[in-house]
Amino acid sequence: MLSAALRDGTAHRSCAFEVFARRLPGGRRYGVVAGTGRLLEALTRFRFTDAEVASVAEFLTDETLDWLRDYRFSGDIDGYREGELYFPGSPVLSVRGTFAECVILETLVLSIYNHDSAVASAAARMVSASDGRPLIEMGSRRAHEEAAVAASRAAYIAGFSATSNLEATRRHGIPGAGTSAHAFTLLHTDADGPDEAAAFRAQVDALGVGTTLLVDTYDITAGVETAVAVAGPELGGVRIDSGDLGVLARQVRAQLDSLGAPTTRIVVSGDLDEYAIASLRAEPVDVYGVGTSVVTGSGAPTAGMVYKLVEVDGLPVAKRSAHKESRGGRKRALRLARRTGTVVEELVTAADAPVAPTDPYVAREVSVPLVRGGDVVDTGTVADARELVASGLTSLPWEGLGLSRGDAAVPTVFS
Amino acid sequence: MLSAALRDGTAHRSCAFEVFARRLPGGRRYGVVAGTGRLLEALTRFRFTDAEVASVAEFLTDETLDWLRDYRFSGDIDGYREGELYFPGSPVLSVRGTFAECVILETLVLSIYNHDSAVASAAARMVSASDGRPLIEMGSRRAHEEAAVAASRAAYIAGFSATSNLEATRRHGIPGAGTSAHAFTLLHTDADGPDEAAAFRAQVDALGVGTTLLVDTYDITAGVETAVAVAGPELGGVRIDSGDLGVLARQVRAQLDSLGAPTTRIVVSGDLDEYAIASLRAEPVDVYGVGTSVVTGSGAPTAGMVYKLVEVDGLPVAKRSAHKESRGGRKRALRLARRTGTVVEELVTAADAPVAPTDPYVAREVSVPLVRGGDVVDTGTVADARELVASGLTSLPWEGLGLSRGDAAVPTVFS
Repeated sequence: MLSAALRDGTAHRSCAFEVFARRLPGGRRYGVVAGTGRLLEALTRFRFTDAEVASVAEFLTDETLDWLRDYRFSGDIDGYREGELYFPGSPVLSVRGTFAECVILETLVLSIYNHDSAVASAAARMVSASDGRPLIEMGSRRAHEEAAVAASRAAYIAGFSATSNLEATRRHGIPGAGTSAHAFTLLHTDADGPDEAAAFRAQVDALGVGTTLLVDTYDITAGVETAVAVAGPELGGVRIDSGDLGVLARQVRAQLDSLGAPTTRIVVSGDLDEYAIASLRAEPVDVYGVGTSVVTGSGAPTAGMVYKLVEVDGLPVAKRSAHKESRGGRKRALRLARRTGTVVEELVTAADAPVAPTDPYVAREVSVPLVRGGDVVDTGTVADARELVASGLTSLPWEGLGLSRGDAAVPTVFS
Repeated sequence: MLSAALRDGTAHRSCAFEVFARRLPGGRRYGVVAGTGRLLEALTRFRFTDAEVASVAEFLTDETLDWLRDYRFSGDIDGYREGELYFPGSPVLSVRGTFAECVILETLVLSIYNHDSAVASAAARMVSASDGRPLIEMGSRRAHEEAAVAASRAAYIAGFSATSNLEATRRHGIPGAGTSAHAFTLLHTDADGPDEAAAFRAQVDALGVGTTLLVDTYDITAGVETAVAVAGPELGGVRIDSGDLGVLARQVRAQLDSLGAPTTRIVVSGDLDEYAIASLRAEPVDVYGVGTSVVTGSGAPTAGMVYKLVEVDGLPVAKRSAHKESRGGRKRALRLARRTGTVVEELVTAADAPVAPTDPYVAREVSVPLVRGGDVVDTGTVADARELVASGLTSLPWEGLGLSRGDAAVPTVFS
């Protein structure tokens, strides 16, 4: 495409591309935009090295190779801030510049947005299902090694409290947390058999009594008794990773209380998703450890966002083929809310259309400038994004937080 | 864990960890091991930089920080060769060394194996469903930017013909292929409206008549007519990306034939998975372009492999908690086959047990040495792995290639 467009001169036409999701996966009520910060950081590094250019020399013209060598995005980007909720059709990103400089960003933009938004969207449902209890992201082993780091970041933005991925703590400043694995308990085995007390003692010696001990390697009741015997009643927590977590949490709570350890917390983990988390609301669980389901988007591992050309030299353009129509022209989004703050509608209009009065609703412009002339003008922080998710969730009508399949929390209206 | 184990001396115990999947996702009949080559390459680079060590200095002892600074895996690894089929419980990898040097590899090993094997396992089903027609992997935009590169590699190992991910062609030598996007056609719009012929002409001028033109931006019948008018009857191919692909393929085939272009190939794409691919077997489709479903493992984005401690100082160890029991002791796997080559059983025994006669079946030792004393001894190539998948698929009993839910193609027998 790039070679052909450079050859016939259309590569230099002024274009606008928009990113949006045609639908939300699995009857969900809302999505969470994530990846903005990572995209802006990646954009500044998005150049082609000599080795990269050489690798495509075989099938591209010299003109194209020169263009790639000099590539630097010099256009403008507007978009929803990271952490903003989105709905079907929400124009979450608008990328403007020449055709060539914009089209070459498609895979970078979509890879980051589709992955990070998929994780954040699933994670936000788990956060609302947890009813205020902390969640630790522990899914690194179930995701590609680099995707895992991005997933930790996205889960934190959505409201998770911490991650077990140390690279995410280093790279993105996400708080770290974790417990030990069964291997550590099993390691403390000798010719006389397993010695769970030795494992617990080693952990407490190294990390203090505030640590969390994994008590289900052998027998949970014996494990809890040993844990309190070793650490004393100030033991920080115990983790249960298998079995009927609700029943076990109740038994362990009663046992801890009877052992004089009422402040020892119960951490549960093991194939938790938003539904399992919700089902444990009435149980004495203090912390959830969530792995596979959060890093894989809980059944929706990609957000399904697309990157579509909507305007060429000021003319709106749109595909007309069945089932995949798009709406031409640059767009803006206004989020309408009642005076109480509850949102009622995502209003999408032509970018340059005058805004009609929205009374009695309050209208908020959702997009902000992110890049001007190739320079990043608004990055935002992970903390900002996390606050935005939290406030977004409280702005939804009550049915918008439902876990069951349903319509989007608010309608998207194209005007 | 590491700090505690260094402190009480257990870090230096001689250990064996094994990687296996407890079950295959979604009633599948087999899995495909992928990631071996990437793991061996990553292992040689797996060190901790000063910046990384500094980032954990706050909560680790000086002894632990020193250990991390000096880290280099010095143990042994055996495993299934990349591209080998696996079944529930197959010991696909055995990692041996001190507890500390092995336990620290868990996330690296599982991230790579769970991602790459998930993609390869889904891709292999698509390959067998395609009945010999080529498949192009086009899913980069639906996966994390680095996971996308690994996914291209895994799909190729499973039998895909090519990828649209140029970084995968550069980094892993995967053949590249692709077509143009709707944006390229839409770009050729002026005040008089869309000019599909101009877009096709630009592409043919740049890439020759052997290129594949995307014909469904506006009206498919008009698009095909324009494509042949511009490129002539030697046109390489047309791509259809929307609508009822079976019906459209038949119509387009008839139209191309009537236009004197019987050798022009039909490429179909658009939300294809193994079931959609199979449903198009009777249609005149020449090439499948597959995106989302292959890079997300077609419903199973992670292979669910675990990394379990099975032996400490020669003693077998195993967790005893409900639902997640593991089998202690180092294991070996023999794949039993009829003399015709059809496999009948995965026989897993203790690593040091004498092998009983397997007549009338032929036994093949599945694992090979991969690392000795920290040095990689057998990497294999992507091409080797691809051949192994192809021969593995032909070795399955006929019901093993079924797409419907069922039992594993052969039973895993623990002896």
